[in-house]
Amino acid sequence: MKNKGFFCLLVLFFLGFQVCVQGRLLAASKPDRDDAAGYARWLVSQNSWGILNTISTELEGAPFGNVVSFSDGVPEKSSGIPYFYLTTLDPTARNALKDHRSSLTISEYPLGTCGKADPESPVCAKITLTGKLVLLDANSKEAEFAQTALFTKHPEMKGWPKSHNFQIFKLEIKDIFMINWFGGPKPLTVDQYLKYKM
Amino acid sequence: MKNKGFFCLLVLFFLGFQVCVQGRLLAASKPDRDDAAGYARWLVSQNSWGILNTISTELEGAPFGNVVSFSDGVPEKSSGIPYFYLTTLDPTARNALKDHRSSLTISEYPLGTCGKADPESPVCAKITLTGKLVLLDANSKEAEFAQTALFTKHPEMKGWPKSHNFQIFKLEIKDIFMINWFGGPKPLTVDQYLKYKM
Repeated sequence: MKNKGFFCLLVLFFLGFQVCVQGRLLAASKPDRDDAAGYARWLVSQNSWGILNTISTELEGAPFGNVVSFSDGVPEKSSGIPYFYLTTLDPTARNALKDHRSSLTISEYPLGTCGKADPESPVCAKITLTGKLVLLDANSKEAEFAQTALFTKHPEMKGWPKSHNFQIFKLEIKDIFMINWFGGPKPLTVDQYLKYKM
Repeated sequence: MKNKGFFCLLVLFFLGFQVCVQGRLLAASKPDRDDAAGYARWLVSQNSWGILNTISTELEGAPFGNVVSFSDGVPEKSSGIPYFYLTTLDPTARNALKDHRSSLTISEYPLGTCGKADPESPVCAKITLTGKLVLLDANSKEAEFAQTALFTKHPEMKGWPKSHNFQIFKLEIKDIFMINWFGGPKPLTVDQYLKYKM
C-alpha cells in the first residue's frame, strides 16, 4: 500500500504524456534551427495532419483550406513528400482535379515543442509546401508506398467506406516557405529538402 | 506526510491539464453536434490559431496557407469574427492587400476533444470560413475591440516589434464550411453563425 501513491503518479504521468503527444508520431528530437532541410523534414514527418489548400471552383476562386491527414512515409522512413487519402465527396479533391495549384501548411504548435511561444511567433515553426496536388495511379509502386505510409500513421483509414471512393493524392512540391526563428523564411530549395537524409 | 502522495497527484493532474489544454482558451463545454451555429462559434472561440489562406501573388496565384494566431473576442465575449495581427513582412498580409479572397481553417483536433478519432475523420470537427481579408482602420472602434481581443488571448503580441508595423485585419465571412459528424457539411448561413448568442 505504501507504493500505491507512487504507482498512481506513474500512471497519471504516463496518461498525461499519452494525451499530450496526440498528433505527434515519432520521438525524433528537434533538429538545430539552422539546419533548414532537417528542420523542415522533421516538421513534415512528425506531424500527422495539416491544412491542404486548393483553389475553390465553388467559391469564386477563393483559396480553400481543409483539415486533412497526411503521411510522408512510415515512421523512420520518411520521403518528405506528403500523401493524402481523399474523396471527391469533399471539395478539396474536386478542386484539385480541376486546378492542381495547392499548398500544405503545418505548424509546430500542436507537437507541443514550442514552449510558451505564441503559435504565430517565429520561434514556433511553420512550413508551407506549395506545388501541384495530383492523383496517383492506383496501380503504381508509388501508390503502394503511399498507402502503406498513410495506413501506418492513420490506421482508421483502412476502415473508411469503400463507397466514398477514397483515392491517393500527392503534393508535388515546387516551393518551400519555412519560418523557424527570427529573421524571415529560411532559404531552402526543394532539392535540398528532398535529398536530406533523416 | 500521509497526504503528500495525494497532494503530488493533484499537482501533477493540474500540470498535465495545463499542458494538455495548450491552445485551448476557454472551458466552455462542447455543444451538441446538431447545433451547427453553436458548434461553429465554439470552434472559433475555443481555438487560438488556425491557417489563414490567401492567393499568392508571388507563387503564380497558388492558394497559400500560413499559420496565424487570431481572436474573435475576449473570453466570454466572442463575436464570431476572426481578427488577426499581421505584418506585410509576411506574404499573407501582402497577398490580402492585392487580392482580398481568403479563408481561415480551424481544426478541433488540437483542442484535444476528438477522442481517438483521426484528424481527417468527420467525427473530429473542422471549419473553413471563406470571405474577404481586409485591413481595419487603426482608429476605428472595431480596431480597438479587435486589439483588446487579440492582446487578451495572445499577450505576447503586445511586445512584437513596432518596426514590423503589425496591423489589424479581419475576415469578412461570406461562406461557412463545417463538418462535425458524418453526412457532409452542416447547413449554416453566415447570418445564423453571427447572430448566435454564446
